[in-house]
Amino acid sequence: MIILGLDPGSQTTGVAVIQVNGNRLTALHGEAIQLKTLALPERLVKLEATLLGLIDVHQPQVLVVEKVFHGVNVKSTLMLGQVRGVVLLCAAKRQVPVEEYNPTEVKKAVVGFGRAEKQQVQMMVKHLLNLPTIPTPHDIADAYALAICHAHSYPMKMHGLNPFGKGRFS
Amino acid sequence: MIILGLDPGSQTTGVAVIQVNGNRLTALHGEAIQLKTLALPERLVKLEATLLGLIDVHQPQVLVVEKVFHGVNVKSTLMLGQVRGVVLLCAAKRQVPVEEYNPTEVKKAVVGFGRAEKQQVQMMVKHLLNLPTIPTPHDIADAYALAICHAHSYPMKMHGLNPFGKGRFS
Repeated sequence: MIILGLDPGSQTTGVAVIQVNGNRLTALHGEAIQLKTLALPERLVKLEATLLGLIDVHQPQVLVVEKVFHGVNVKSTLMLGQVRGVVLLCAAKRQVPVEEYNPTEVKKAVVGFGRAEKQQVQMMVKHLLNLPTIPTPHDIADAYALAICHAHSYPMKMHGLNPFGKGRFS
Repeated sequence: MIILGLDPGSQTTGVAVIQVNGNRLTALHGEAIQLKTLALPERLVKLEATLLGLIDVHQPQVLVVEKVFHGVNVKSTLMLGQVRGVVLLCAAKRQVPVEEYNPTEVKKAVVGFGRAEKQQVQMMVKHLLNLPTIPTPHDIADAYALAICHAHSYPMKMHGLNPFGKGRFS
């Protein structure tokens, strides 16, 4: 299974592609799409072109993004939404399903507990993918973490179980 | 000049195309793009396809949307952002510049004062465009109002004046 993890940001969007073979995870591609020097419309155009290109090259079975619960303020939430809208559009245009996880779920799935520090997540990303260093900028590590989260969660989800708690997955 | 006004919404997006010849405004097209029966990814795909089609048919010189200052909550602001991101992407892909006005500016430009009621705006839209009835659903009237706002504002803007206050336009 190929998983595309995405950490959308209006200045930098982190993307990471991993391959899952049983328990073995392999990093195929990590990239930070730099958008901050562009005006918003051009950011969205560059984002769309880059994402569609990545999807066409790697043919992921699923795209994973962070679930958004709270915003810093209206301006930043709106901006995040605008970038996220283009991400979801790209997925839909290539018929790639989208999965969402909240930060606690990502930490739990990658490190083992939901209150892990950012550095612990990054260390585990390096370890689990057997990378020579922690991917930088952190947007790439965050994107890998999302992809790993899904790799660790979907076998249970497929059996109707909630990987992050007791009982059935709802 | 052809102006495309847009009232983005995740359930219904209102679009309106007007032509400006001197003081004369003509309604060319009003439409409510119905999205609510679809899942979010499909909403964005339908929105993109419809908007690109409208831009290709009417070749507007400018696209006008409402400026967003405050959100009802994170969920609705994020959703509005996602829809808006696709709108801005469509404009950028066809190299149509985007102008933004806040609700007070729209009311001022359409009715004459910034605290006008919604019904007054709709009546003026009907009157100014010489329409047989007020366009419904209201999303279409709102989109026409945005287009009219720009029609009434851009001559002053072009001369470096602020149509909504004293002094230079900034």
